[in-house]
Amino acid sequence: MNDLRKKALAYHKKHQGKLYVGTHQSIDTREDMTLAYTPGVAHACKAIETDPETAEAYTFKKRMIAIVTDGSAVLGLGNIGSLAALPVMEGKSALLQRFAGLEAFPICLKSQDEATIIKTIEEIAAPFGAIMLEDIAAPKCVSIEKTLQEKLPVPVFHDDQHGTAIVVCAALINALKLTDKTFEDIHVVLSGTGAAGHATALLLQAFGVKHIQAINKNGPVKEDTDDPLCTNLFEAKTLKPAETDARIDLFDGTDVFIGVSAPDTIDESMIRKMNDRPIVFAMANPDPEINRETAFAGGAYIYGSGRSDDPNQINNCLVFPGLMSGLMRSPAKTVTTAMKKAAAKALASTVADHERSVNHILPSIFEKGIPDIIADAVIKTLNER
Amino acid sequence: MNDLRKKALAYHKKHQGKLYVGTHQSIDTREDMTLAYTPGVAHACKAIETDPETAEAYTFKKRMIAIVTDGSAVLGLGNIGSLAALPVMEGKSALLQRFAGLEAFPICLKSQDEATIIKTIEEIAAPFGAIMLEDIAAPKCVSIEKTLQEKLPVPVFHDDQHGTAIVVCAALINALKLTDKTFEDIHVVLSGTGAAGHATALLLQAFGVKHIQAINKNGPVKEDTDDPLCTNLFEAKTLKPAETDARIDLFDGTDVFIGVSAPDTIDESMIRKMNDRPIVFAMANPDPEINRETAFAGGAYIYGSGRSDDPNQINNCLVFPGLMSGLMRSPAKTVTTAMKKAAAKALASTVADHERSVNHILPSIFEKGIPDIIADAVIKTLNER
Repeated sequence: MNDLRKKALAYHKKHQGKLYVGTHQSIDTREDMTLAYTPGVAHACKAIETDPETAEAYTFKKRMIAIVTDGSAVLGLGNIGSLAALPVMEGKSALLQRFAGLEAFPICLKSQDEATIIKTIEEIAAPFGAIMLEDIAAPKCVSIEKTLQEKLPVPVFHDDQHGTAIVVCAALINALKLTDKTFEDIHVVLSGTGAAGHATALLLQAFGVKHIQAINKNGPVKEDTDDPLCTNLFEAKTLKPAETDARIDLFDGTDVFIGVSAPDTIDESMIRKMNDRPIVFAMANPDPEINRETAFAGGAYIYGSGRSDDPNQINNCLVFPGLMSGLMRSPAKTVTTAMKKAAAKALASTVADHERSVNHILPSIFEKGIPDIIADAVIKTLNER
Repeated sequence: MNDLRKKALAYHKKHQGKLYVGTHQSIDTREDMTLAYTPGVAHACKAIETDPETAEAYTFKKRMIAIVTDGSAVLGLGNIGSLAALPVMEGKSALLQRFAGLEAFPICLKSQDEATIIKTIEEIAAPFGAIMLEDIAAPKCVSIEKTLQEKLPVPVFHDDQHGTAIVVCAALINALKLTDKTFEDIHVVLSGTGAAGHATALLLQAFGVKHIQAINKNGPVKEDTDDPLCTNLFEAKTLKPAETDARIDLFDGTDVFIGVSAPDTIDESMIRKMNDRPIVFAMANPDPEINRETAFAGGAYIYGSGRSDDPNQINNCLVFPGLMSGLMRSPAKTVTTAMKKAAAKALASTVADHERSVNHILPSIFEKGIPDIIADAVIKTLNER
């Protein structure tokens, strides 16, 4: 770990971070100056003033994503503030470039107040083709995304919510095939009702899941919960209220465990309570809700986690490059449920029937072509409406 | 002109604008992923959380400038809004890179309200090493810059104000040598009391100029002006109030005309009123206050304008790359008058004694090494305090 620390700090120090801003065209002569800058540049400005849509042709707008954070809920680190979150934002931009050839610039917000976040993003949104929200705490992340999507004419996507929901559903599509179960019939226990848990429950419902019960840090989530996101999910009939205070009781007769919560929150005895051929996705970061060995000792049939050393790595890196690529390559103005379902199905389809096994329900993120397959599926939904 | 329009639009369309965001490090293996992203990235985040100064080592902060505009006063185009101003901002970033190896990202603000502009820049400033304000209308640009410089721990520089003031003073240093006059003795007529005029008057005063009178669109500026920037300048004893309503009277007995106003606002007869060996800097964009031929017909001894076809091109492109380089390469937290004076002197010094002539008071922007000379001079002022 100390070795990783040294290596990671040296890696970040080498070039002072990971991103740079460059120019496509050289400026070597007075004529270059007259085109890139005054007086030629005025013609591009006037064109955009007359018709703002032409900004997509004459500026970086349709190539450029804003990655916005307030640093209030950074992966595995919590509320560290937006400047300390900048390495993650630079990293996310680097991944977008590496996996989908996309460009993104980090916007690190000072305030963690919901209204201020919304107002600031509205103020700076104009030159971006899409807004990607990152590492903003629940429950405000849900209303921030919703409000911005209503106000802005470009897609707004919170990866921590939907990237996770999509990759879980993709993994589940393939896991269900291996267990001969269906979305309609399975009973699900969801551990974690924050950004990822909320979105995952909603997308599972969109896929036809009828029976989901949840656990959060207070235990099984009951009708009288004071968590506004859970109240939403009860109202939408996405979640069924628990009728017990004992976590283990929720596992009785369930088929799928989905953990997007905290390390080591479930144990072997809980897996034993599950139905035949249990599916266990334990995605807490940096350590899962239950480790692979313990899950198998409890009888798990299929196990996946967020770890890169896991044969079934369930990581939203598989999703967001392709999804953002679909948004940027199309005239999409919003992110729809149809897009999220299409992305999950497309990702699941990249594991061919003959490849699919209990230790191979998702492809590696280094497998070529996956972002394009997801992007094409996202774009296709625009024509289906 | 139609030809320039075609060429400029094609130039901007070729790569969808001029800027791109790239990454320094390739991500080809799982190990690369663990360094650039989770879990290794967490070590860079924790280091910054513990000591925010380390952001300069582990992120792009100390390399990255924010170029911020509300699009309210774009060079030669007026109030076109910030999206239509994006090509100018991309161009400015391209010039910073070309001439000083600096990186800058455009921030285009929706609101043109002073308080909102200040608040939004405060909200997004953290990951930038300096803030460069661009094309924001007077008089608010002066108070926005002042307030932000008080609030933010990084330098804030409004090029339209100080870039212009510095290049004018550099040109004047060399012009005065050619006319055997001194800052202390000259009488100056200043046409234009907006962002550039206000800053130029203040920097002239810092160089020792004691007699400046101004003209704006209402005519000679008198004690009872309703322009808040002129009132400032009267209070600071920078400007002397005019005691006439006739523009031509102000030229009587003056040595220097400085125009940062509008095309064709002065004529030959006014130049004739000036003292021996008149210095005429007519920098209105795109066309000067008086053209070269007319100025010489009126008896001008030295003439300069903002045009790239003028042998004495007085353009802030000569200044801002070097000045921003000095700020980014040093621990400077504010932009001081000492820095502006040092930048002007350094720029003037790049024209050697034997090169200096009435048609060569400033170097070409393509002459190598000028930004470094200015940057070094700016940095040197930090040790002199």
